[in-house]
Amino acid sequence: MPTPPLDALIAELPDGAVVTDPDIIAGYRQDRAADPDAGMPLAVVRPQTTEQVQATLRWASAHRVPVVPRGAGTSLSGGSTAVDGGITLSTERMREITVDPVTRTAVAQPGLFNAEVKAEAAKHGLWYPPDPSSFQICTIGGNIATNAGGLCCVKYGVTTDYVLGLQVVLADGTAVRLGGPRLKDVAGLPLTKLFVGSEGTLGVVTEVTLRLVPAQPPAATVVATFDSVRAACDSVVTITGKIRPSLMEFMDRASINAVEDQLRMGLDRSAAAMMVAASDERGGSGTADAEFMAEAFTRHGATEVFCTSDPDEGEAFAAARRFAIPAVEAKGSLLLEDVGVPLPLLADLVAGVEDLARRRDLMIAVIAHAGDGNTHPLIVFDPDDAEMAARAQRAFGEIMDLAISLGGTITGEHGVGRLKRPWLAAQIGPEAMELNRRIKAALDPDGILNPGVAY
Amino acid sequence: MPTPPLDALIAELPDGAVVTDPDIIAGYRQDRAADPDAGMPLAVVRPQTTEQVQATLRWASAHRVPVVPRGAGTSLSGGSTAVDGGITLSTERMREITVDPVTRTAVAQPGLFNAEVKAEAAKHGLWYPPDPSSFQICTIGGNIATNAGGLCCVKYGVTTDYVLGLQVVLADGTAVRLGGPRLKDVAGLPLTKLFVGSEGTLGVVTEVTLRLVPAQPPAATVVATFDSVRAACDSVVTITGKIRPSLMEFMDRASINAVEDQLRMGLDRSAAAMMVAASDERGGSGTADAEFMAEAFTRHGATEVFCTSDPDEGEAFAAARRFAIPAVEAKGSLLLEDVGVPLPLLADLVAGVEDLARRRDLMIAVIAHAGDGNTHPLIVFDPDDAEMAARAQRAFGEIMDLAISLGGTITGEHGVGRLKRPWLAAQIGPEAMELNRRIKAALDPDGILNPGVAY
Ligand SMILES: Cc1cc2nc3c(=O)[nH]c(=O)nc-3n(C[C@H](O)[C@H](O)[C@H](O)COP(=O)(O)OP(=O)(O)OC[C@H]3O[C@@H](n4cnc5c(N)ncnc54)[C@H](O)[C@@H]3O)c2cc1C
Ligand SMILES: Cc1cc2nc3c(=O)[nH]c(=O)nc-3n(C[C@H](O)[C@H](O)[C@H](O)COP(=O)(O)OP(=O)(O)OC[C@H]3O[C@@H](n4cnc5c(N)ncnc54)[C@H](O)[C@@H]3O)c2cc1C
Repeated sequence: MPTPPLDALIAELPDGAVVTDPDIIAGYRQDRAADPDAGMPLAVVRPQTTEQVQATLRWASAHRVPVVPRGAGTSLSGGSTAVDGGITLSTERMREITVDPVTRTAVAQPGLFNAEVKAEAAKHGLWYPPDPSSFQICTIGGNIATNAGGLCCVKYGVTTDYVLGLQVVLADGTAVRLGGPRLKDVAGLPLTKLFVGSEGTLGVVTEVTLRLVPAQPPAATVVATFDSVRAACDSVVTITGKIRPSLMEFMDRASINAVEDQLRMGLDRSAAAMMVAASDERGGSGTADAEFMAEAFTRHGATEVFCTSDPDEGEAFAAARRFAIPAVEAKGSLLLEDVGVPLPLLADLVAGVEDLARRRDLMIAVIAHAGDGNTHPLIVFDPDDAEMAARAQRAFGEIMDLAISLGGTITGEHGVGRLKRPWLAAQIGPEAMELNRRIKAALDPDGILNPGVAY
Repeated sequence: MPTPPLDALIAELPDGAVVTDPDIIAGYRQDRAADPDAGMPLAVVRPQTTEQVQATLRWASAHRVPVVPRGAGTSLSGGSTAVDGGITLSTERMREITVDPVTRTAVAQPGLFNAEVKAEAAKHGLWYPPDPSSFQICTIGGNIATNAGGLCCVKYGVTTDYVLGLQVVLADGTAVRLGGPRLKDVAGLPLTKLFVGSEGTLGVVTEVTLRLVPAQPPAATVVATFDSVRAACDSVVTITGKIRPSLMEFMDRASINAVEDQLRMGLDRSAAAMMVAASDERGGSGTADAEFMAEAFTRHGATEVFCTSDPDEGEAFAAARRFAIPAVEAKGSLLLEDVGVPLPLLADLVAGVEDLARRRDLMIAVIAHAGDGNTHPLIVFDPDDAEMAARAQRAFGEIMDLAISLGGTITGEHGVGRLKRPWLAAQIGPEAMELNRRIKAALDPDGILNPGVAY
């Protein structure tokens, strides 16, 4: 294949937008999935405006060059891994935001970090709820492309619930506005919804209109330890059938210990499981909910239960849970799973993962957005031990097989990316696969947008 | 065109599923939009199972016969109006439902009424929130196809927020399962979301998995009257910037009077506007919110404010609001609008409609899901007065033009249907129109599903 004429693109974009320095572009090869087979891009393009994204895609279409959209590269499923000979389109220079407190919306470019969106909203007493654990290091564009979840989703929903409008650039360079600052709008197909979670395969998001809500009230928190994983998981079903907690997180023994190794906050190292739950209902209701949850945990056999209405103390436990991934990462390299099941099968999923860890002789720490049935088994391996790395890979697939056998999903919030693609058909079936591909073909007939990702 | 061989279809389906009796099928020509130009279907098909829907669509595809999916025919935009020589596929016999209180989901066939879904959920202490005013007479399948809204949406969201999974039958008769009973699932494109709100143009919904939530707590209600529409509308922005009311409805003088004519409940006939708002926050917070709203209404110049924590008394006012459409209908035939704007422009929209009513010399009563910026101007006309009917038609279009000029939408919850199609492009623009059509063509290349609807 002849090398595509990069000069034409360089000429169209402002100075410094097109990077070809091999040392710099090497930094854009992998994302947090650390795929050893990541490709080497032809160039990294860093547009600042929708028009520059359009120019890039027109050029890429004309020359059939693959384009990998990239936010901050924190994908855990290889969604932003570079493709050999392709363009990596980084949104790092697209960082404008305007908050309108009257309409309670924010209009943002995609390259802003989630935490920056939250901070801008907070300046107006408003709140952007979705809170992936990576919120300080991932972009709002990446969140939209993956329909990112997080900790408060159990009550407040996921990214798609806050996206009112988008501007996207299609594969051929056409810019399209979808939705807008209207709270209810059913004019035409729900295309905004189609693009949220499309993993950069249908278009590049260049602007987003987000719905903001009044600031979150302070929460009352409950922490409970269990000597049985099943008891911990079952308590979740009991609680969420009655009230709407604003946090319902699970950690197993391995993750409790990994966090305790790092933070020394006095967690019970002998516990089989720990639940961190909260309620931000207003007035006395948050505390009443916390008491209800404490009771439910106790009834389900919790060994220790601790309640606090001090938001800082509560946040310390949520932070401990959020810190679990880096803490376990201190033990070795990670393969990070993201499987989910219908809520009542949570205990079966965790038990199945434990069993697999034993059989494959691996450390697999499990944390979970328990209220949503969404777990993150963290498979630890030594990258220098090829045999162990292969075992870890096998376990990665087996966990997805397990989730599918339980009527679950291979990905609750991280996306299919490049890593999970081989399992997608087994979950959604051939008819839904075909439907995915028909829509992809209709929007990106040459398949230049993020090839190798998802369906 | 030769008449399609209906015999083959009749042979494939059970007795009574295919109806050709002209007297019976005449009842399926119009929906609540009462389009005088409604077509006459070749037959009405009433399948009971997904397989029978598949057989119908395979037959229709083979013979290129248009298919209009139909629930209860309460569409206000002509979404289920029959097409000459087409099939009207009625879901009236698809009425199974199973509620699983452990997963907190319901699996339902499309032909069940919204109220029946609510009632089944309530048997298990659970709640299905979406509540179109027509909830006792419209189907869950129709709700899904239109992404129906309602009164509690201002806090609880619209239909799409409660749909976890679907079974749909495509134009060619393929049955596809999308999503399922998982609270978080990002495997593949968000196709469940694409079908919710697709107005029967992409496939026929034959089964739905709904997310249920714990029963709604009792609400505290505030009713306030104003002598200025603008003051009433502006109070909405003040309130929803601070708290999350569970109801925030608006009625103008004409609708207040129409309701009072029917119900004689002592509403203030001289008021320019009435707000009915509620908060179902738990513990004391609902009452505190109601007081906060009462104060805000007062600060915005309300002439009278009435608070109640008695749920029955509160419900009487919500019911009065819900009754507004039939009440205004008692004055003449209706053209029912459904336009929306960004919240701060609500007062401008209502003022613009009032102005139009004056200029066109028509009674246009306005009710609104004010918290969502979604209004229903109800244009009253005498169907026997051709000149007046024409004026009403003109106003119908002018109201959409007005909404578009304010950056709003031509339809907040009723759908584009056949009636609003000419205005869609002006709202969403040529690029989004083209995107709609590309997806339609990918899924229904012969265009047999609900032709003439939407894009
Ligand atoms: C420690 C850690 C914790 C995490 N916790 C969570 C969590 O709790 N919940 C969760 O959901 N995720 C979590 N993640 C995963 C990751 O942070 C999210 O998937 C995030 O949304 C990715 O954002 P990003 O900016 O890094 O995107 P990238 O990794 O750069 O890209 C992710 C995907 O989005 C596409 N993309 C990016 N920008 C655009 C755009 N503008 N237009 C079109 N496509 C685009 C890419 O092509 C790719 O497919 C975690 C990751 C880490 C490392
Ligand atoms: C008095 C009154 C008040 C109303 N209030 C509201 C309100 O507050 N909020 C609101 O959103 N709407 C409201 N509506 C409008 C209407 O009730 C809704 O649009 C409702 O969702 C339609 O349901 P249906 O079963 O009557 O569908 P139909 O009218 O039969 O069909 C509506 C659309 O859905 C499609 N459809 C139906 N079933 C299926 C299926 N199984 N698969 C695929 N497509 C299908 C049809 O083709 C059509 O496009 C009101 C209507 C009336 C008459």
